[in-house]
Amino acid sequence: MLNGRDRQLRQITWDAYSQLSLPDKAPYLNNGRRPYHVLLAQQFDRQTLDELGMLATSIRRIAKSKAGMQFLQDLLCHKRAMLYFTQPSSRTFLSFYAACQIIGLSPAEVRDSATSSEMKGEAPEDTLRTFSSYFDLLVMRTPKPGFAERIAWLLSNTERPVPIINAGSGKDQHPTQALLDIYTLQRSFEHLGGIENKNVVFVGDLGRGRTVRSLSCLLTLYPGVKQYFVAPSELQIGQDVLDQLDAADVDYEVSYDFENVIPETDAIYMTRLQDEWDKGENDATKSDNSQYFLKPEHLDKMKNTAVIMHPLPRRDEIDSRIDVDPRAVYWRQVRNGMWIRVALMASIFGKVADEIFNFYELNM
Amino acid sequence: MLNGRDRQLRQITWDAYSQLSLPDKAPYLNNGRRPYHVLLAQQFDRQTLDELGMLATSIRRIAKSKAGMQFLQDLLCHKRAMLYFTQPSSRTFLSFYAACQIIGLSPAEVRDSATSSEMKGEAPEDTLRTFSSYFDLLVMRTPKPGFAERIAWLLSNTERPVPIINAGSGKDQHPTQALLDIYTLQRSFEHLGGIENKNVVFVGDLGRGRTVRSLSCLLTLYPGVKQYFVAPSELQIGQDVLDQLDAADVDYEVSYDFENVIPETDAIYMTRLQDEWDKGENDATKSDNSQYFLKPEHLDKMKNTAVIMHPLPRRDEIDSRIDVDPRAVYWRQVRNGMWIRVALMASIFGKVADEIFNFYELNM
Amino acid sequence: MLNGRDRQLRQITWDAYSQLSLPDKAPYLNNGRRPYHVLLAQQFDRQTLDELGMLATSIRRIAKSKAGMQFLQDLLCHKRAMLYFTQPSSRTFLSFYAACQIIGLSPAEVRDSATSSEMKGEAPEDTLRTFSSYFDLLVMRTPKPGFAERIAWLLSNTERPVPIINAGSGKDQHPTQALLDIYTLQRSFEHLGGIENKNVVFVGDLGRGRTVRSLSCLLTLYPGVKQYFVAPSELQIGQDVLDQLDAADVDYEVSYDFENVIPETDAIYMTRLQDEWDKGENDATKSDNSQYFLKPEHLDKMKNTAVIMHPLPRRDEIDSRIDVDPRAVYWRQVRNGMWIRVALMASIFGKVADEIFNFYELNM
Repeated sequence: MLNGRDRQLRQITWDAYSQLSLPDKAPYLNNGRRPYHVLLAQQFDRQTLDELGMLATSIRRIAKSKAGMQFLQDLLCHKRAMLYFTQPSSRTFLSFYAACQIIGLSPAEVRDSATSSEMKGEAPEDTLRTFSSYFDLLVMRTPKPGFAERIAWLLSNTERPVPIINAGSGKDQHPTQALLDIYTLQRSFEHLGGIENKNVVFVGDLGRGRTVRSLSCLLTLYPGVKQYFVAPSELQIGQDVLDQLDAADVDYEVSYDFENVIPETDAIYMTRLQDEWDKGENDATKSDNSQYFLKPEHLDKMKNTAVIMHPLPRRDEIDSRIDVDPRAVYWRQVRNGMWIRVALMASIFGKVADEIFNFYELNM
Repeated sequence: MLNGRDRQLRQITWDAYSQLSLPDKAPYLNNGRRPYHVLLAQQFDRQTLDELGMLATSIRRIAKSKAGMQFLQDLLCHKRAMLYFTQPSSRTFLSFYAACQIIGLSPAEVRDSATSSEMKGEAPEDTLRTFSSYFDLLVMRTPKPGFAERIAWLLSNTERPVPIINAGSGKDQHPTQALLDIYTLQRSFEHLGGIENKNVVFVGDLGRGRTVRSLSCLLTLYPGVKQYFVAPSELQIGQDVLDQLDAADVDYEVSYDFENVIPETDAIYMTRLQDEWDKGENDATKSDNSQYFLKPEHLDKMKNTAVIMHPLPRRDEIDSRIDVDPRAVYWRQVRNGMWIRVALMASIFGKVADEIFNFYELNM
Repeated sequence: MLNGRDRQLRQITWDAYSQLSLPDKAPYLNNGRRPYHVLLAQQFDRQTLDELGMLATSIRRIAKSKAGMQFLQDLLCHKRAMLYFTQPSSRTFLSFYAACQIIGLSPAEVRDSATSSEMKGEAPEDTLRTFSSYFDLLVMRTPKPGFAERIAWLLSNTERPVPIINAGSGKDQHPTQALLDIYTLQRSFEHLGGIENKNVVFVGDLGRGRTVRSLSCLLTLYPGVKQYFVAPSELQIGQDVLDQLDAADVDYEVSYDFENVIPETDAIYMTRLQDEWDKGENDATKSDNSQYFLKPEHLDKMKNTAVIMHPLPRRDEIDSRIDVDPRAVYWRQVRNGMWIRVALMASIFGKVADEIFNFYELNM
């Protein structure tokens, strides 16, 4: 069960570990090409992203037949996954749940934000260690930033470490959302030379949306991609993201004029106002942001090969009449999330990924 | 995935569709003998009811052995079902859940009435479309009348329609309850010439009980059945139901004298006061309805071949000492609900029903 | 489905049954060596405990390989279990859930304390009888003492009795916790002559902890075991427990000096303050009990072969720095709970236990 990464983690305290910068954390998180823990979007390198995409596509095609599904379900039928979702999220939960069912992982769930153990005064670390005792994989969604990482570090110091997938931690990280976004771009541009050299525009609530931050970071792995950030000034992308892009020598543009940007873009990534994080009264939330909405009249200005993405849920930022346009891929994006999560689980239990590629070559 | 019905639904807007009368909706709901969506009790014709009953009985017998259970579980092992129960209902939920397990459908559930997506301002239609992306069948129980129908119509306009089973929508419809009632009557009168020409008496809260309305409607498909409605005047059956019976030229009797009716009946269908729908203060609920209760002293007046049914939960309307009488079939009715739901799922994935009949002929 | 015990229960009313003393209840609960219902810790005899331990160990070793897991999952793949947990308990719930997954029992769950049926005025007995209709095994955790026993008695009077496992009933009973404690002791002293003649010390909240009461009782089955009870006076073990020990002619010691006892003990069983049961204001809860905590400095005084146990969750009574000491077995105890529950389920469906022993002899 132990691997190189885990042994490394043993030699470092939590305080020392958590002081590290992201690049320095990487060796603790990314065991070469196969992630054992999936904690941060930034842990993925280009090769891993390419492999995960190929794996997801193989799985998606294998799953079309009953025989293929039976092959997949047999792969991890001897393993159990716990979905620990103390932050409500039906869509991410169901996506992981279905992914478990596809790959044969028996799922169990904890969804109460207040478990009985907390009432009994137990430390959250003890609770998670107990729950992990029964399972072979933890998928965690919690409101606490960094909590999945802390549990990963903690379990690495025990006799029975289990891989952890961060399924969203507060405003902080949601790495599998970033993976499904990348996979959607991979699929969309599969016959158009790949993601390289495409123009990607982020629209809406860019300051608070963790999906935008993560995807922006992963896109730096694709040469020639230009990123646009289109939002009202109160909701614009953070300077820290732009600094990262500068550091990576990536071309980008900050804009307040959506209409003007539309004709140039290959992918429009719409986002929703994240006002569930709002606390203040005089918030930007109250502004009229309709100039940053995608409307049917915009469709004529878009490239024929462009795609419209959205992490969902949406409100008014995409008119529902756009749903039937073939360039609207946000519903397919939902399915992609399920497939990339299957791929990720296969990848965590390394040999399984190889079995899938072998089956694909022999049978498809 | 698409079939004739779905293509038809594409050509009609929701407003136009929802204006249709029940008979005119039928072609959109009932694709010949196999229901793709199960939305209304009224969508079933006699042939479908007969086939579902035969299928349920075959399944029930096959399930008695481990080898039989393994055969059944293999049938839909490549499919996943979502049980979306935003109205609390443990019994219907567990019945569907067990039915999924028997036929091998991997179940997942949403049971919160307030999902996170609603908090984020998402339209319910988007929520359901998202959830449906991960699954091959939706079983829905919601407090909103017509909601399952609306989602069925909506998904039919997408690239990935999935069959929907209405597991109860407010006061409105509960078609699988009607199916299990019919199946219980089929089993009870299997060696007594079938349901035809039997006297069925409905007792209790007839005005508000959707199960009574649905069963009354389905019984019109069986020639010679006479229906009795026995209830205090405030709780009597609605005139619209009687009008339907008139239109179908069905014999019926409205009565206020339970004792008098008992000796004539072949099936007594007891119901519970539905006071969870009560809003007013001066409601009939407060009346003493004990003259409409079934008591041990009534048993001597009943035919030996008669059956006592109840959709459950019960309160005082059936004395628990009656439970041991062989004519009390309400506990068997509960099991019948599970079997007919397995049959329905098999029937929705058409080829599976044929496989079951074949297995039954070869092995039983 | 019926067996000797069930037929006996038929001949006795609930009132008559519930008046019986524990020994007199035994024939209704313990069908020779195989428990059909698991209701009380006291129902287990020594032979059953030995067999369950051997079975758990066989299962644990078989489960190490994928082929072994597939063998196990096939054993009860034709059965369904309902986990009815109306008292919150994620750890016990997950342990049973994982146990079901290991032995192939399809699990379903009811976790709401307020089910819709209760709102509709249904008797709890009716609710449980309905739920049991869909399943082959009930695992029940409720706040009501004796409720699992009552349902076991009730279902025995029906045509479809199903085995019941009490997963904790209020302050009353938690028999599977007692089993996992015994199994942990069996494993710990496997190469040290077994549990016989060991010194076991219970520390902490002994008056209210049901686990201590149950384990103390089961330990009387092992000759030569001396029991120590170390606690502040307000939290000391009840006189009824001591009376039982006297009756069984078991050696014990009531002590207020933890430090003094440590060097003599083979197993230290630490417990947590059960203040969730507190109602009063001036409760002992407020006292400083830190002299009954296990601290790193105690480790040097302990035997090398001693073990430290805790039913978890813990608070401050065991310093987390002790976790890495090889004598701390409380995390292994958690896993043991899962394995003994698998063994118990196998044992309930008798033939399955034999299949496991056969497989073990042939393959391991």
